[in-house]
Amino acid sequence: MSYFQQHQSDFVEGLKAFLRIPSISTLSENKPDIRRAADFALKELRAAGMTAAELIEGQGNPLVYAEWLGAPGKPTVLFYGHYDVQPPDPLDEWKSPPFEPEIRGDDIFARGACDDKGQVYIQIKAVEGLLKTTGKLPVNVKFLLEGEEETGGEHIEAYVKTKPPRLKADAAVVCDTEMFAPDLPTICVGLRGMVYYELFVEGANHDLHSGVYGGAAPNPIMAIAEILCALKDRDGHIHIPGFYDRVVPPSQKERNAWARLPFDEKEYVEKEMGARELVGEPNVPLFERVWARPTLEAHGIRGGFVGEGAKTVIPARAVVKISTRLVADQRVDESVEQFKAAVKAVTPKGVTAQVKMLHSGAPSLTNPDNPFIHAAAEAMKQVFGKETVYIRSGGSIPIVGVFDRYLGVPSVLMGFGLPDDNLHAPNEKFHLPNMFRGIESVARYLEILGQ
Amino acid sequence: MSYFQQHQSDFVEGLKAFLRIPSISTLSENKPDIRRAADFALKELRAAGMTAAELIEGQGNPLVYAEWLGAPGKPTVLFYGHYDVQPPDPLDEWKSPPFEPEIRGDDIFARGACDDKGQVYIQIKAVEGLLKTTGKLPVNVKFLLEGEEETGGEHIEAYVKTKPPRLKADAAVVCDTEMFAPDLPTICVGLRGMVYYELFVEGANHDLHSGVYGGAAPNPIMAIAEILCALKDRDGHIHIPGFYDRVVPPSQKERNAWARLPFDEKEYVEKEMGARELVGEPNVPLFERVWARPTLEAHGIRGGFVGEGAKTVIPARAVVKISTRLVADQRVDESVEQFKAAVKAVTPKGVTAQVKMLHSGAPSLTNPDNPFIHAAAEAMKQVFGKETVYIRSGGSIPIVGVFDRYLGVPSVLMGFGLPDDNLHAPNEKFHLPNMFRGIESVARYLEILGQ
Repeated sequence: MSYFQQHQSDFVEGLKAFLRIPSISTLSENKPDIRRAADFALKELRAAGMTAAELIEGQGNPLVYAEWLGAPGKPTVLFYGHYDVQPPDPLDEWKSPPFEPEIRGDDIFARGACDDKGQVYIQIKAVEGLLKTTGKLPVNVKFLLEGEEETGGEHIEAYVKTKPPRLKADAAVVCDTEMFAPDLPTICVGLRGMVYYELFVEGANHDLHSGVYGGAAPNPIMAIAEILCALKDRDGHIHIPGFYDRVVPPSQKERNAWARLPFDEKEYVEKEMGARELVGEPNVPLFERVWARPTLEAHGIRGGFVGEGAKTVIPARAVVKISTRLVADQRVDESVEQFKAAVKAVTPKGVTAQVKMLHSGAPSLTNPDNPFIHAAAEAMKQVFGKETVYIRSGGSIPIVGVFDRYLGVPSVLMGFGLPDDNLHAPNEKFHLPNMFRGIESVARYLEILGQ
Repeated sequence: MSYFQQHQSDFVEGLKAFLRIPSISTLSENKPDIRRAADFALKELRAAGMTAAELIEGQGNPLVYAEWLGAPGKPTVLFYGHYDVQPPDPLDEWKSPPFEPEIRGDDIFARGACDDKGQVYIQIKAVEGLLKTTGKLPVNVKFLLEGEEETGGEHIEAYVKTKPPRLKADAAVVCDTEMFAPDLPTICVGLRGMVYYELFVEGANHDLHSGVYGGAAPNPIMAIAEILCALKDRDGHIHIPGFYDRVVPPSQKERNAWARLPFDEKEYVEKEMGARELVGEPNVPLFERVWARPTLEAHGIRGGFVGEGAKTVIPARAVVKISTRLVADQRVDESVEQFKAAVKAVTPKGVTAQVKMLHSGAPSLTNPDNPFIHAAAEAMKQVFGKETVYIRSGGSIPIVGVFDRYLGVPSVLMGFGLPDDNLHAPNEKFHLPNMFRGIESVARYLEILGQ
């Protein structure tokens, strides 16, 4: 019985302690929890045997750094993950409280279980196991964990942009994606980028009686509806001039590989999504829609009277949160200009619309013909006993673009989440068997790289 | 010096006490305040010298009834008003707290100051003045005050429908409208009706990650935007099949009279509304747009993440409050069917939309060639020293249609509010000189009717 198998219950208890910290980066009231989570990760890295472990302080939430450099002549791997989590609301839809981890069946339920504390924990425990049993690692290893991934990761980006010598590495390993199916080892080679906006619309400078002024007064809720509908039509097509110009379609080889993936659409729609039917661009295959096409979505909207009962008011203002997901080779800055110009062009008369960009991340697309990716595929194949598949993800991990651009380092996306892990939603979970196999896969990966 | 002039400061203190009661009918937590406001009105009516004063209890908030029937052979006038008020939010936009009346200049600021406590107070004090100084009234007078006007007035409607003998009257006098300009005595002869809806839209049964599912998942916020835009276009035209079929356009005589009203559009838009420009149906004159055309407005919307910062979620559901204002001869029931059918027809794929009707009121249009209206115009002319104008109002006072339909009684709409009184909005106020002239006008009206 290996170290990894012997310590499974310790791993679960340790992860539970990590998950109990409500390190929600988007809410200022959780600042102290952010620090507690950073300290927790720091302590775990030290206990695992990593050296030079410290918090890197800056403008935002601290980065957690650690290294083990006892393998001269061997490659250097930079592990990345994030210790911050999404807000848990809507709270009343959780079956168990989001920050009181509960195991039901083979799954552990808590905010951050999969995204990304569980996967950060995989990285730490893989290293711990190798160090505890062999006293060394097969390659040089560095850790860089951040606490702002869910709010844009500005601090880590600012830090990486300075190209600090201690971040020098041959490859980054990012564990923040998912497997295509429960037993199917998966490497993600493409990510969408994202720009997140708030759009504020104001009509009159005070709320107006809808009887007295209705028919002549500008209505910011209607204006937001008109702007949204002008930006995206019912077929999911985005009407922002120039927006699609740089979109690179997937190759026929990639399309063919996607078509071969084991997939049950009914299960995906009804069980995983809990939806009635799929929507989006007609004639574009599903995986291409969610992995290789840009989107525009509204995430939250508020305006006027939303209390109990009726209030006949034309509100003075309303606000909507919107994001665009970008794909290779769309450029963040250019898309922001295009978005702002489009909003301006379609804003109806009588209101003003203000666009505020909250954060952004570039899309990324990695060439799978890379020894660090091959080694990862081999390690996962050995642990899971199945051929590894290459997919993309519709999500955004901006750090991948940042590592590529400023450190010249390719990222290996070894993800151990599952499609039904409810990321960013109530009842987020992590599949414990995948945590255990994930730890072994990452350890095996380091061994292969060291050969 | 008349009784009315001698007691102006008493009237102000009495109104303040009335305004301090937060009798918000739409919020269940204010139920006790509703009763306190009803009791306050009851006490005032008794103190004024009215007899048979009592609360009429039923399913909803109590009605306040009182009568004085000491003028046999003379007409009977039924005074109507409401003691409930709109919610005060957004609270942070009030310069003084909504339920702590404050006098600034010639205005008293508080929720309900104009709509409708100040105007109910006018009716009571007019009667009080006549009874205190002459010991009798020139005509028979009844009062029927309600506490659900802002939430649909179901209780009073149910009561009036039973045609109770004690409501027998020759005319109703409703003080709940406004004057066209500060010194211009005004009688309102037309009101829009209203139907108030909540529209619930659901996509998936739980919130989804916008990266993972964006491009394929139904988005209820987008769906509401699409429904709103399908129901009403940017020109303010409503696309509900059959909706305009029964709309009666104003006569040329009425249009001409409206065109002669003293009006400064710049002042109306910028100062009164605090807006940048007017919107709505092109080629339809302003007064026709707000008085004689139906509308569709969104009053409040909520969905997804509306907290601080960013959350990349496709929400499971969203809700919007919508009303349609109706004009003569549109019918409430028919319009509800039309609305529901239209929503069903334009709901995008992937979501379900549920329409809930909260309350409704029929439009009304009174023939101004009526002795009770002529007498009112004459009374106001005598007090204000100017010719009385006839206008309509875009607002809804459902009881007018109910009185007409079940009691066969025409309503005289003598209103003393002003266009900038911020009804249903922060900083609602009532112009005190108009309260004093209003009391004298109503008293003079009863004298003229008694002649």
